[in-house]
Amino acid sequence: MGLELYLDLLSQPCRAIYIFAKKNSIPFELRTVDLRKGQHLSDAFAQVNPLQKVPVLKDGDFILTESVAILLYLAGKYEVPDHWYPRDLQACARVDEYLAWQHTALRRNCLRALWHKVMLPVFLAEPVSPEMLAVLEGKFLQDKAFLTGPHISLADLVAITELMHPVGAGCQVFKGRPKLAAWRQRVEAAVGEVLFQEAHEVILKAKDSQPADPTLKQKMLPKVLAMIQ
Amino acid sequence: MGLELYLDLLSQPCRAIYIFAKKNSIPFELRTVDLRKGQHLSDAFAQVNPLQKVPVLKDGDFILTESVAILLYLAGKYEVPDHWYPRDLQACARVDEYLAWQHTALRRNCLRALWHKVMLPVFLAEPVSPEMLAVLEGKFLQDKAFLTGPHISLADLVAITELMHPVGAGCQVFKGRPKLAAWRQRVEAAVGEVLFQEAHEVILKAKDSQPADPTLKQKMLPKVLAMIQ
Repeated sequence: MGLELYLDLLSQPCRAIYIFAKKNSIPFELRTVDLRKGQHLSDAFAQVNPLQKVPVLKDGDFILTESVAILLYLAGKYEVPDHWYPRDLQACARVDEYLAWQHTALRRNCLRALWHKVMLPVFLAEPVSPEMLAVLEGKFLQDKAFLTGPHISLADLVAITELMHPVGAGCQVFKGRPKLAAWRQRVEAAVGEVLFQEAHEVILKAKDSQPADPTLKQKMLPKVLAMIQ
Repeated sequence: MGLELYLDLLSQPCRAIYIFAKKNSIPFELRTVDLRKGQHLSDAFAQVNPLQKVPVLKDGDFILTESVAILLYLAGKYEVPDHWYPRDLQACARVDEYLAWQHTALRRNCLRALWHKVMLPVFLAEPVSPEMLAVLEGKFLQDKAFLTGPHISLADLVAITELMHPVGAGCQVFKGRPKLAAWRQRVEAAVGEVLFQEAHEVILKAKDSQPADPTLKQKMLPKVLAMIQ
């Protein structure tokens, strides 16, 4: 059995992995785990990941969780252009720095926005903190074409898929931020319009989706609360 | 100017970097940034890191933030034993997996415990979530000597310095958890008793420390609240 990726494109980290694998022609079997149908709670999926979370990579007997670890594994195993995760020590450190920063800062913020606005009946006036966006722009992007240098890297992929989450919830993340908006265009162009749209189709429709099944909602609520608290 | 590390050993990520650099005889200038004196808010430090956070690495003109990025940079630049961050793809992925997991799971939990119990006058009955410790033990440690394999890695260093945070707040993290307690002994032995104690001296005394200056407290409160919310 070759490489298998357990994903739901509703999830930001899954989209980053999906785009990265597709863009770099990495051959994989897509195993869709529909979070809204609670498939991540099934016994079958628990065999793969007892933590019941996507994404998961399965490469023969080797099972790996955590999106950043999965991205680095793919970048290390397959022949991909150097700019994704540069061999140069300092260029690479810039990507690592972003990947670490987003874990605690951006990631949390965007997740919260989506759950609050789409999944929970709570409306937040300020869905993505302007401070976070200011750091993204001022510390990372600056006057470069991409977050960590002149070429697209894993950092851009992780960032854009994250920011498209609140966009999916109807938030105007890029409005009044011409630098970030121009960066988004560059990332879309580097990834390719068609692949970008394909990966974001589910999330951009999320706000129009049917309310979830009430029994399932009940089952998932503790996890949702744990995530946003 | 050689390598400079801006640290406060009160901070978990700073301790991990300190131990790693010392243990591997990496030559560096220690620039102590006393968080309790608000030195991270000074203009001088803002020149180094506008985000006003430790740790920071300065290597000539190259400035790097985020502890995980700093640890990987040091492991890449200096000759250190392979087990810290293995070259083998799958062994390395295991370390990356842990480093990613701890960002969102363990890290947050322990920080919260310390701030709540030591820095804020709130006592929590359950300072470190048993679920987190169960994952640490069941998914990562299992029956291995260390979190990601038979030898100590960056994962163990990041984990132990994190867990010593609530220990510093007087929590019985290892009580009733013989496997984790035995792992802690192995990590201490691998690092070396003296270095381990040296790095943890500040945090283990934190709960007995004098209350902070009221003006400083006022200044820091928003940051503390942002951190634990």
